[in-house]
Amino acid sequence: MYDLIIIGAGPAGITAGIYAARKKLKTLLLVRDLVGQAGKISEIENWPGEKNISGMSLMENLLDHLKGFEIEIKEGEIATDIKKEGEFFEIKTKRGNSYSTKTIVVASGRTQRHLGVPGEEEFTGRGVSICSTCDAPFYKDRVVAVVGGGNAGFRTALDLIPYANKIFVLDASGKIRADEAFQEKASQSGKIEIIFNAKVLEIKGEKRVEHLLYQDTTIKEQKELPVDGVFIEIGSVPATEFLDGFVDFTEAGDVAINPKNCETKTPGIFAAGDVTDVAYKQLIIASGEGAKAALSAHNYLQSLN
Amino acid sequence: MYDLIIIGAGPAGITAGIYAARKKLKTLLLVRDLVGQAGKISEIENWPGEKNISGMSLMENLLDHLKGFEIEIKEGEIATDIKKEGEFFEIKTKRGNSYSTKTIVVASGRTQRHLGVPGEEEFTGRGVSICSTCDAPFYKDRVVAVVGGGNAGFRTALDLIPYANKIFVLDASGKIRADEAFQEKASQSGKIEIIFNAKVLEIKGEKRVEHLLYQDTTIKEQKELPVDGVFIEIGSVPATEFLDGFVDFTEAGDVAINPKNCETKTPGIFAAGDVTDVAYKQLIIASGEGAKAALSAHNYLQSLN
Repeated sequence: MYDLIIIGAGPAGITAGIYAARKKLKTLLLVRDLVGQAGKISEIENWPGEKNISGMSLMENLLDHLKGFEIEIKEGEIATDIKKEGEFFEIKTKRGNSYSTKTIVVASGRTQRHLGVPGEEEFTGRGVSICSTCDAPFYKDRVVAVVGGGNAGFRTALDLIPYANKIFVLDASGKIRADEAFQEKASQSGKIEIIFNAKVLEIKGEKRVEHLLYQDTTIKEQKELPVDGVFIEIGSVPATEFLDGFVDFTEAGDVAINPKNCETKTPGIFAAGDVTDVAYKQLIIASGEGAKAALSAHNYLQSLN
Repeated sequence: MYDLIIIGAGPAGITAGIYAARKKLKTLLLVRDLVGQAGKISEIENWPGEKNISGMSLMENLLDHLKGFEIEIKEGEIATDIKKEGEFFEIKTKRGNSYSTKTIVVASGRTQRHLGVPGEEEFTGRGVSICSTCDAPFYKDRVVAVVGGGNAGFRTALDLIPYANKIFVLDASGKIRADEAFQEKASQSGKIEIIFNAKVLEIKGEKRVEHLLYQDTTIKEQKELPVDGVFIEIGSVPATEFLDGFVDFTEAGDVAINPKNCETKTPGIFAAGDVTDVAYKQLIIASGEGAKAALSAHNYLQSLN
């Protein structure tokens, strides 16, 4: 029987782990993979105290810090189900293991959203990518499209500047949603062209991606863009299937929490970071929320006895 | 006219500055002194990614990061008054300067209430602590005193149980003021001894804390307690005098915020970190809250145009 099981090892989960371990809670951390979404970010410039750090390095620092404490970490464990057992909980995983715990901190983050158009799945790994950190270098002197004009889309476009000749950023809306800092860098490069009101219809090609078909939604006209690659950055969905019945969800699918203390509607289950309806999805905010959730779990455990 | 004035340069204020600068807001940071409360912490082991760092080094890292952005910083400026000027604000400082701004992030922190006895200031960071979450692990197998028998004092004592051999809780009153749950745990531990009617007179030692001198106020007798550490938990006061009329205060004197987005009751004024009624006063939480406040100020500014 654990005092606390943390699900997820992004900044929220790891910070929850650090705080729980310092409170001497018997803690288990279950994690799909230790790189996660944050580990894929090529450059981070808004983690306070780090002027410029790769997502991979930041996550290594956090994990290294966590491992200095007494805490159990199980990798490759994906929570699939929760059961209430009396006052406590039992978590089942995809591998068929089950773990008993008095409290839970859900910090399972988000998974990237798909376009759901023909060619997307077919050409994944052959021109369609969701990771510029991984794949940008393959597009030297090529033409690429980035689908999504938010911060993630712009970050991807900036990652491509040193490689690609030309980068189209397609956004379904009529205005830029990315930070001004990103926009400035994009316009300075002279390589980036933004296409607004673009609804992607299909990704086409023979063996690899060759064309992107989209509709200009203002004039209802189909257009074809010759491209060698398509990077998809249209947001993400929280990883929460296993929580049904135990938490409330917002319309966007986020886990609804009490923003004061990260409580969910089930006493003993807390949630933190990008999986929740926290107002902003940011690494440093997720980290702070992870600390809150762990301290709330600690308070809850003290109230039990 | 600034877009944003941030008051305070602890983790909340600096993170707000980093986020505001990245959003290209014309930002001014007013700060009493650049070390602040956090800079005085001897060792920090719960800033994720830093296994062990002094408060001074952490604050230097944060400040160094902030200074890489376009932001004005004015040191030695203490806000004394705010006036509403139409839709915007004018902040007056002790030095007689005044600054106009569209939004404000209050991150002025707290000042912990002091005992005001000899040795207290001298041994701060060398046995005298105001943060058990930060410092409890340094007292493994040691004898410590906690001054203050309210919930904060007991929470501190409980934090010390896994580490210290013996914990004295001194209270000036004749009865316990902490929650029963705390008292029960304290008595179960077998490590905690409560000393009532204790008026602390002096903290003594050579290089580090060695003794605590107090008066038993019932029998007017001085007693000396050999201790390795003294945790002071007699409350703290937020630095908020200049905010009267613009924000609501909790009973404890904290600035009441909407925990979702750091709004106060005055549109355009946000608050973050230990000056607020945030559930836990922790560096990483304050940092996350600072990011929230700056992003909320940015959203508010966008809604103005």
